Amino acid sequence: MSVSPIRVTVWGENVHEQRDESVKKIYPDGMHTAIAAGITANLGDRVVVRTATLQEPEHGLTEEVLAETDVLTWWGHAAHDQVSDEVVDRVHAQVLSGMGLIVLHSGHFSKIFKKLMGTTCSLDWRSANDRELVWTVAPNHPIARGVPNPIIIPQQEMYGEFFDIPAPDELIFISSFSGGEVFRSGCVYRRGRGRVFYFSPGDQEYPVYHHPDVLRVISNAVEWAAPTSTERTLPHVSRRPTGWFETGETLSAEDPRLA
Amino acid sequence: MSVSPIRVTVWGENVHEQRDESVKKIYPDGMHTAIAAGITANLGDRVVVRTATLQEPEHGLTEEVLAETDVLTWWGHAAHDQVSDEVVDRVHAQVLSGMGLIVLHSGHFSKIFKKLMGTTCSLDWRSANDRELVWTVAPNHPIARGVPNPIIIPQQEMYGEFFDIPAPDELIFISSFSGGEVFRSGCVYRRGRGRVFYFSPGDQEYPVYHHPDVLRVISNAVEWAAPTSTERTLPHVSRRPTGWFETGETLSAEDPRLA
Amino acid sequence: MSVSPIRVTVWGENVHEQRDESVKKIYPDGMHTAIAAGITANLGDRVVVRTATLQEPEHGLTEEVLAETDVLTWWGHAAHDQVSDEVVDRVHAQVLSGMGLIVLHSGHFSKIFKKLMGTTCSLDWRSANDRELVWTVAPNHPIARGVPNPIIIPQQEMYGEFFDIPAPDELIFISSFSGGEVFRSGCVYRRGRGRVFYFSPGDQEYPVYHHPDVLRVISNAVEWAAPTSTERTLPHVSRRPTGWFETGETLSAEDPRLA
Amino acid sequence: MSVSPIRVTVWGENVHEQRDESVKKIYPDGMHTAIAAGITANLGDRVVVRTATLQEPEHGLTEEVLAETDVLTWWGHAAHDQVSDEVVDRVHAQVLSGMGLIVLHSGHFSKIFKKLMGTTCSLDWRSANDRELVWTVAPNHPIARGVPNPIIIPQQEMYGEFFDIPAPDELIFISSFSGGEVFRSGCVYRRGRGRVFYFSPGDQEYPVYHHPDVLRVISNAVEWAAPTSTERTLPHVSRRPTGWFETGETLSAEDPRLA
Repeated sequence: MSVSPIRVTVWGENVHEQRDESVKKIYPDGMHTAIAAGITANLGDRVVVRTATLQEPEHGLTEEVLAETDVLTWWGHAAHDQVSDEVVDRVHAQVLSGMGLIVLHSGHFSKIFKKLMGTTCSLDWRSANDRELVWTVAPNHPIARGVPNPIIIPQQEMYGEFFDIPAPDELIFISSFSGGEVFRSGCVYRRGRGRVFYFSPGDQEYPVYHHPDVLRVISNAVEWAAPTSTERTLPHVSRRPTGWFETGETLSAEDPRLA
Repeated sequence: MSVSPIRVTVWGENVHEQRDESVKKIYPDGMHTAIAAGITANLGDRVVVRTATLQEPEHGLTEEVLAETDVLTWWGHAAHDQVSDEVVDRVHAQVLSGMGLIVLHSGHFSKIFKKLMGTTCSLDWRSANDRELVWTVAPNHPIARGVPNPIIIPQQEMYGEFFDIPAPDELIFISSFSGGEVFRSGCVYRRGRGRVFYFSPGDQEYPVYHHPDVLRVISNAVEWAAPTSTERTLPHVSRRPTGWFETGETLSAEDPRLA
Repeated sequence: MSVSPIRVTVWGENVHEQRDESVKKIYPDGMHTAIAAGITANLGDRVVVRTATLQEPEHGLTEEVLAETDVLTWWGHAAHDQVSDEVVDRVHAQVLSGMGLIVLHSGHFSKIFKKLMGTTCSLDWRSANDRELVWTVAPNHPIARGVPNPIIIPQQEMYGEFFDIPAPDELIFISSFSGGEVFRSGCVYRRGRGRVFYFSPGDQEYPVYHHPDVLRVISNAVEWAAPTSTERTLPHVSRRPTGWFETGETLSAEDPRLA
Repeated sequence: MSVSPIRVTVWGENVHEQRDESVKKIYPDGMHTAIAAGITANLGDRVVVRTATLQEPEHGLTEEVLAETDVLTWWGHAAHDQVSDEVVDRVHAQVLSGMGLIVLHSGHFSKIFKKLMGTTCSLDWRSANDRELVWTVAPNHPIARGVPNPIIIPQQEMYGEFFDIPAPDELIFISSFSGGEVFRSGCVYRRGRGRVFYFSPGDQEYPVYHHPDVLRVISNAVEWAAPTSTERTLPHVSRRPTGWFETGETLSAEDPRLA
């Protein structure tokens, strides 16, 4: 119910866009810029959007930036290993403290997604111009608001099952590909005080982040993942004396009841 | 851990098989007989299997039969409305009391499945010789044991999303069809003290219940759905005095603490 | 994102309040009036709230009223059987079509809740002035926004496990009672296009619906359960020709492809 | 259906038992020995049980030992940091490949549990002789077979919510404590090809691992967590040519379709 806009940081690895001509043609300013523009176009003054990339100091994800970020989106592929563990731990702590996280496409293999999932996050794949159909299986979920069923993506990389993830807390989308494979392509997770959405459409070789329905889903997810509280606290261990909740008192470390 | 075999009752509507030549050719003794034979072939002396059909008195599902049934399988299509409400209520009570239930294909629209789900159980469909691929998304589930990924069903009726069911407690299989549709084709539910498995492959016009992988899944599901207890009690309201669990006492209705 | 207020109908059985002096003292204008006032106090101009009771024609839940209701809350206890099946079916269809439903306390045994759950919805109980503590186990859920952990309800009826419900899609609250029992007291379900929240605190003999934290939870749930779409359509069967989604065409019933 | 016994390895940190007189009295041969004896007593020739401890080379968890382990149980508390990362990674890979894992009590803070969960796994606690009641909320689950509802543990450390874990795939037990706190004390997770069960009762200062119902739950969990397949393969990325599933062919890395 906050009247403040949602503060979004769109993170891009920004490697393919610098080095591959095929990708530069589709995304001359980088995929992160296209994603940021789509969110702004959809949500208007309900958001303020900035971008950050791997190449910036601390990958553009300093403590200050993260503290001022309500929802972070993540696209990476060629350089997962170049993301510093320190930044990954920092993002992890922020998610568990309440920041929303949207992981896109090949981000399934990012350090941060694997750390949050606890599994290998492996999958089957093929890059052969498959058509992807994205079917909604949770039509009442806010992330599916206003998107056609199915979303039709004319050309896409195939991602197929078995996708080694925890069963999602909510499964929103299932994709099929021309070759017959299926994929759980829209997955909701709650972790700590934060919310995570994985959305698989999107590949550097296809203009998926110019697709209005894909940008609509990402924008919906931004609104859904925004924190419900302004408090940003990492869950932590508390030692509690009997009846602590009746008095509301705070114990000092020297409290004899804790001896 | 019981050494007793699982008592299975395979219920068949047995209408198409009596009236449609195309179906008689595929299932001269009825689909229920083919399903029963498949379960017996897979599980051997771990099961004793009988069949029951709509046309029998009380549809073959008397209180006595159900009391001696560990797992009931259900196929119906053309005559859902002819199943008496009394028998449906009886099956419902047995499932909530611990009996396993496996609902097959067009059984999604049976009275018993709709009553257990609480939703319309509607879906999209087409009968046009689609190829169905059944993909495993829970490879560690006992129902998926020993089946290839994907199961290939050369010709099948298409069932597509949106399938109006509660989100399954566990999603085991997702199907794709030649036409591009997807379907949550293997769904686990726990209801009361019982377990329910919905499995969509199977149609009277295609020889799906002669497919060894389909029969393997149904057989796995029989083992999975068998009760973990010999007790068969419907969950019910109990009025409890303070500390009842420490004494193990049983209260009479006249107990003053219940006044 | 709609700027329109959420249209809430608070339904009350209104039997205890008419007949029991003890209840009249606590709720001179009925529990429904107290609940409605609490929602209005919390949500202000984000809602418009009306009430309806069992005694009105069609229990105050005509097709017109329901069509104009975004979220319905339900309290019943002594007269579940007097609610007409026609009205129950009507509410059921509206929920599956997108209307939010909040079921309170003894509403666990209402026809509408049992129909949506598919189980007996039975539980253990005791009316002996237990203190109830309502613990949040999903702190990032909007329904838990702004409530203390635990909520302390000084005197309450005890509701205890085993509560025969489907495992909730999300478990928000777990209660404990002085006597040691526990209860899944805040349960989220998605059914069809609608959302359902069950919240157990509240009993006619205790002033629970004057408790600010209880009213805060109900108000949060109203916001959460409001439809994400203005469309109100019951999920239904559709027969689909191959490739239907590419053309967007609508088939007439005479279409030869459907023959 | 294997007739081979389940191979169980009971891992114990074995620090308190060596250093604290109070613990030695309760567990003169270590908690791991008590747990192993309980499993053997309950399951007889359906299991072969060995133990391993922190102090052994590679903590007793060599590749060879893990390859021959169907289910691993884990108790640790004072020395989580002394468990080598290499062994943790090894256990993690085995779980995702199919090995069952049962994490006990203070093992919630072990490296392996945190790595599998992806969250802080923090909680509230108090050591003040609370009575713990363990309530079954999934009476049809094999892990709850044959245990009273509630299990009464006369003296226990309190573990309370908020417990920062992913919502369990299945919630089996909820505990209450004399002080009024609640805890999700029996939680099922599926990760990769493996199954994980967390069970919170058990503390070095109380004789909980001599409690027959606690040992019954752990034994039930051993049977439930045993792999359904003898294959032990870590999920991994596969590049798939179109139609791979129809031919069953294996592609060499030089296959032109993969170019």
